[in-house]
Amino acid sequence: MASNSFGSLFRVTTWGESHGRAIGAVIDGCPAGLPIAIHDIQQELDLRLPGKNSYTSPRKEEDLVEILSGVFEGVTTGAPISLIIWNKDAQSSSYDKIRDLLRPGHATFTYLEKYGIFDHRGGGRSSGRETACRVAAGAIAKKILSFYDIKVFAYLKEIGDISMSLTDIADVDILKGLIQKSPLFCPCPQTEKKMIELLQKEKEQGDSLGGIVECQAVGVPAGLGDPVYEKIEASLAKAMLSIPASKGIEFGEGFHAARMKGSHHNDLFFSDEGKVFTKTNHAGGMLGGISTGMPIVLRVAFKPTSSIRKEQDTVNREGEKKKLELSKDARHDPCLAIRAVPVVEAMIALCLVDALLINKTVKMSFDEKACFC
Amino acid sequence: MASNSFGSLFRVTTWGESHGRAIGAVIDGCPAGLPIAIHDIQQELDLRLPGKNSYTSPRKEEDLVEILSGVFEGVTTGAPISLIIWNKDAQSSSYDKIRDLLRPGHATFTYLEKYGIFDHRGGGRSSGRETACRVAAGAIAKKILSFYDIKVFAYLKEIGDISMSLTDIADVDILKGLIQKSPLFCPCPQTEKKMIELLQKEKEQGDSLGGIVECQAVGVPAGLGDPVYEKIEASLAKAMLSIPASKGIEFGEGFHAARMKGSHHNDLFFSDEGKVFTKTNHAGGMLGGISTGMPIVLRVAFKPTSSIRKEQDTVNREGEKKKLELSKDARHDPCLAIRAVPVVEAMIALCLVDALLINKTVKMSFDEKACFC
Amino acid sequence: MASNSFGSLFRVTTWGESHGRAIGAVIDGCPAGLPIAIHDIQQELDLRLPGKNSYTSPRKEEDLVEILSGVFEGVTTGAPISLIIWNKDAQSSSYDKIRDLLRPGHATFTYLEKYGIFDHRGGGRSSGRETACRVAAGAIAKKILSFYDIKVFAYLKEIGDISMSLTDIADVDILKGLIQKSPLFCPCPQTEKKMIELLQKEKEQGDSLGGIVECQAVGVPAGLGDPVYEKIEASLAKAMLSIPASKGIEFGEGFHAARMKGSHHNDLFFSDEGKVFTKTNHAGGMLGGISTGMPIVLRVAFKPTSSIRKEQDTVNREGEKKKLELSKDARHDPCLAIRAVPVVEAMIALCLVDALLINKTVKMSFDEKACFC
Amino acid sequence: MASNSFGSLFRVTTWGESHGRAIGAVIDGCPAGLPIAIHDIQQELDLRLPGKNSYTSPRKEEDLVEILSGVFEGVTTGAPISLIIWNKDAQSSSYDKIRDLLRPGHATFTYLEKYGIFDHRGGGRSSGRETACRVAAGAIAKKILSFYDIKVFAYLKEIGDISMSLTDIADVDILKGLIQKSPLFCPCPQTEKKMIELLQKEKEQGDSLGGIVECQAVGVPAGLGDPVYEKIEASLAKAMLSIPASKGIEFGEGFHAARMKGSHHNDLFFSDEGKVFTKTNHAGGMLGGISTGMPIVLRVAFKPTSSIRKEQDTVNREGEKKKLELSKDARHDPCLAIRAVPVVEAMIALCLVDALLINKTVKMSFDEKACFC
Repeated sequence: MASNSFGSLFRVTTWGESHGRAIGAVIDGCPAGLPIAIHDIQQELDLRLPGKNSYTSPRKEEDLVEILSGVFEGVTTGAPISLIIWNKDAQSSSYDKIRDLLRPGHATFTYLEKYGIFDHRGGGRSSGRETACRVAAGAIAKKILSFYDIKVFAYLKEIGDISMSLTDIADVDILKGLIQKSPLFCPCPQTEKKMIELLQKEKEQGDSLGGIVECQAVGVPAGLGDPVYEKIEASLAKAMLSIPASKGIEFGEGFHAARMKGSHHNDLFFSDEGKVFTKTNHAGGMLGGISTGMPIVLRVAFKPTSSIRKEQDTVNREGEKKKLELSKDARHDPCLAIRAVPVVEAMIALCLVDALLINKTVKMSFDEKACFC
Repeated sequence: MASNSFGSLFRVTTWGESHGRAIGAVIDGCPAGLPIAIHDIQQELDLRLPGKNSYTSPRKEEDLVEILSGVFEGVTTGAPISLIIWNKDAQSSSYDKIRDLLRPGHATFTYLEKYGIFDHRGGGRSSGRETACRVAAGAIAKKILSFYDIKVFAYLKEIGDISMSLTDIADVDILKGLIQKSPLFCPCPQTEKKMIELLQKEKEQGDSLGGIVECQAVGVPAGLGDPVYEKIEASLAKAMLSIPASKGIEFGEGFHAARMKGSHHNDLFFSDEGKVFTKTNHAGGMLGGISTGMPIVLRVAFKPTSSIRKEQDTVNREGEKKKLELSKDARHDPCLAIRAVPVVEAMIALCLVDALLINKTVKMSFDEKACFC
Repeated sequence: MASNSFGSLFRVTTWGESHGRAIGAVIDGCPAGLPIAIHDIQQELDLRLPGKNSYTSPRKEEDLVEILSGVFEGVTTGAPISLIIWNKDAQSSSYDKIRDLLRPGHATFTYLEKYGIFDHRGGGRSSGRETACRVAAGAIAKKILSFYDIKVFAYLKEIGDISMSLTDIADVDILKGLIQKSPLFCPCPQTEKKMIELLQKEKEQGDSLGGIVECQAVGVPAGLGDPVYEKIEASLAKAMLSIPASKGIEFGEGFHAARMKGSHHNDLFFSDEGKVFTKTNHAGGMLGGISTGMPIVLRVAFKPTSSIRKEQDTVNREGEKKKLELSKDARHDPCLAIRAVPVVEAMIALCLVDALLINKTVKMSFDEKACFC
Repeated sequence: MASNSFGSLFRVTTWGESHGRAIGAVIDGCPAGLPIAIHDIQQELDLRLPGKNSYTSPRKEEDLVEILSGVFEGVTTGAPISLIIWNKDAQSSSYDKIRDLLRPGHATFTYLEKYGIFDHRGGGRSSGRETACRVAAGAIAKKILSFYDIKVFAYLKEIGDISMSLTDIADVDILKGLIQKSPLFCPCPQTEKKMIELLQKEKEQGDSLGGIVECQAVGVPAGLGDPVYEKIEASLAKAMLSIPASKGIEFGEGFHAARMKGSHHNDLFFSDEGKVFTKTNHAGGMLGGISTGMPIVLRVAFKPTSSIRKEQDTVNREGEKKKLELSKDARHDPCLAIRAVPVVEAMIALCLVDALLINKTVKMSFDEKACFC
């Protein structure tokens, strides 16, 4: 099955293994005429760079992206855009000792069951490294959204028992600035401080933490998403649950909605200057699978990083009991949710561009004199 | 966009409006040779029948399904299976009074924004009635699973603040019997009793409740699902978030995983009689997007029914302030999560059959003398 | 594989066997707001009615189509359109005698090899009866094209060694009138007369004839079709070769182009009132897989009907030598190409509507102030 | 629209412009465990190398392919296979003079109409250079076919009025040897000699020629292809008509079948050692859209190369009358059909592998004790 592609009209195909020669993405279906510079993509990639601080994996990649096709004289041509990132710092030797062990929480076992073969070097396709390609493709999607005044942002909302809430979003750009300045992508300095202390503690103990990322899109027009099987929340759910280590998603009130009454959950309509809004946004920006024009709000739960320094019981490929102890130089994030933030943001951008394009096909002009526009 | 189809190789396309002449499903890609009787499908439909008790919508449909094609002499032929259910009890007149109002929590507004037109009779495609087609198609999927000893079940886990937990599943068939005997699809009589009391209370007040449905699949072989964008949890998330009123999904520990440490969340491998298992199942039966062979465990959150008898502020299509008061004879479920139970079960069955078929394409024989099998 | 669907954005799924209870089509992705009446569909179906004359199969179907969903108050809603045609005159008994024989030129053998099962009554899905659904769906596509002044027509160009050429198309509507008046869909009365004589002769001898159908689309805007794998000719080729009994397709000069020189085949550009045209149309209306604005011209070759009254050698399912002699009351067309004419016309209409919708996704506005239109 | 991909389960996505930095292909869905070496791919690419002789374009590319992902220790892993070919000899300067002219027979005009932008350097995506990626991907498909004893070959059957026929194929490997030895891919030395003379003559006159390529696949099992819209001939037709400059396709007797009678065209069944064959193969190896087990036989017509040295009338982008005269150093094939031969062969290999994989999903075991195999 061709399972390395995402999106229907704006379609991204990624390739490459964590410890192979390179990784890359092919974006097919990007409309012609979009001004795009290498800088637009590079700056997004830089945000998710490993080694940015001591709380994320110390692997040192420059992650320099190159555009190999689809852009001519600074503008997209409608042809597929091929992006490539060469792998430079791939220390496969550090995995040699454990190549025959089933690593708890890892995909080694399931890949072996499925394919009968496993590229043991650093996780192959199941590695978080694949998500760099999503961020690169997402940068192009964001560029498109920028022309339509649609803004997306994600931030780290929760680690362990430490959590923050966005109260009032006065200005999305200021908020995005705060998020990007934080090594944890957490816009609240007090919360960030507590999170860092917790991370430090668990890191010392060789353990890891889970977390929750919240993501919003503002300026989304009403009408995106399709009824029934292609509801906007269904597409977003698939997008987010395709991110490594994600274990759940909720929209608006989400699981909390299950404990509410209809009279509290229903968002009441009102009208202002000929446009319809809702007084609240418990629904998270969608009704019947279609965007309402209110901000889209979702949260994604990430499990704690599976790679921990603590010794664990396991078996090898032959089923023999073994102890797994990672060498100290194996590089891992103590909390994957941190580096997932830009990936969540990229995935919502990809979803929205796809939905915008799909929505163009829903209406045609059936007037006396219809024309092609 | 062709958004009324679900699945890639086992592909279901549904059609029909809540208050049109009929609803139906076309199943394309069902393997040939499957013995299937109308009874196999009808018994599943009967489980979700409206009017079964006072806690679900009193609309009286017999929901008699007919097979129009694809089955010859009791066996599937490989041709598309066309199922039809005629609508009998469609009281569109009860909607006439409110046809111009935007109903809070409903899709009227978003459909109008998207299509510029809305079949106001009972919700059209956004109605829960479409899910009868999912249950009918799911019955065929379950029939396939039965040959592979894969069992799926869903139950009502939570309404409001009342919740239950499955502790030990000794026998899936006994459990399924308990679930199906319950008008709320809740296998624990004590919990069911409390839920009924709560439902009764809210119903009297003209209000509604949300709820959480848990679903499990046991006997699923390791290896289903594809890495990256077609992870088994991504497919399941899309499936479940396409059910009307769903607002969230989680797998295994789900959102709770975000608060766990890696050393607790990791499921440790052990081996028994040459087969590999995990001691716990925090992951909910999947690693790296691929099934582990452990039970698949997921929970879906449903918002409270949007249609309530309580008066609500709203606007009409022209944006003028209006009061919405539903007539007492408009029929609604006080808690949609109840009737969602068989739908959740149908959707996991559809996902699993699709995944089983897709998985057949992952391996080929590359031996000296490969043959087509 | 979900192989009973056609098109990507305007997607038609057909179901039903020749001798089952009914046949039908589900059209998903039809834009909302299209005025459509049952008459629009019925009149197209009436054109392909079997039993219209002594040169086509005497099977008597009324082929009354019903719309079950997707149309509300005479206008499409964006929901899937379900069409159904009940089978009335299905004499399966006439096939009982030969149920175990492999019929030369028929799909019995290949279906058995593929599925291990065969609905022997009249060919099942491989029967020409499936094409009624294409014509019904095509009627909706043609309705859409009518708003854009795109006209499609097909006619019988050749049977045996009798052939005609369209010289100058002064008025497409007059030409369509001539075609529809002819029982052979041949607009030239002299040619038609000769064809009828030939058909009569072969029919008496219990034999059958092949033929060639030419199809044109005028008013197609430049820009339809996509480069590389979704060239407009690639889509049309797939569409036409999916019609039963078709054995070839060519565009513009087609196979004759292989015998031409570049200096003769190249269509030279000229400009008139700011619009670019080509002086000739050897290319058949497309360059690089994209429509030029000139008429699309294609021809489809059909093999002679496989069912003939002449005795033929064959084997039964067990491989034993047998003689096949069809009973005189088995109903067949002496020349399938005749009834293929409306099907070819339907398929080009479906292709063009799909291409029109896809083309809407190629461009977006990237101006200072882009808006969603 | 994501139109740069081919195939459904074995899916190839190509990218790159003729005069960009590189071209490449991503193959998604290749089963794991296939032994593949760079040599397997390089040797196929070498066959289509430009500049091999004076009858094909003198552009000098080494076309060295690199495998960037999906292969580990000489074996495919199930991950996407990324292939890259760097462009070395891209003389875009030779196109500068004519950058504003609409070139007769070229895609400049239609690309401009579609995208509003055109990468004028050597044709961009519409260039034949894209087909190198098809050949590279086809090499992997052929490797798979080799394990199933399926052999495909294509050859140049006709140029201008010079034509050859294969009479008796005693040994496919010997025949392939003859084809590959010929600079024109024509296995008959006498015909080749005449073709060369004709080519030489037209080349001197600055003109070009069309041609016909025949392609066969032997050893194909019965049962490939799907009824209705995914007939094997429909898939092959789409594949072949996606090759630049192709203008028609026919199967078996093809257009000639339109002039035959049923009693002559029907291939009669016989049985030999429990296996069913047909005495003749007028159908070209398929019935009802499904392979019969007899050789698949098809022919593709190619128009004469559009780029000729002869002066031609045209207009520029503004619609002003101009003369087009190509500089003598612009590199073109006098007959595109020659270099299309390996591409036709690649496309049938890609189609067959896809069909093989799809066919695995048609049957499941529904025995008492079904197992996953």
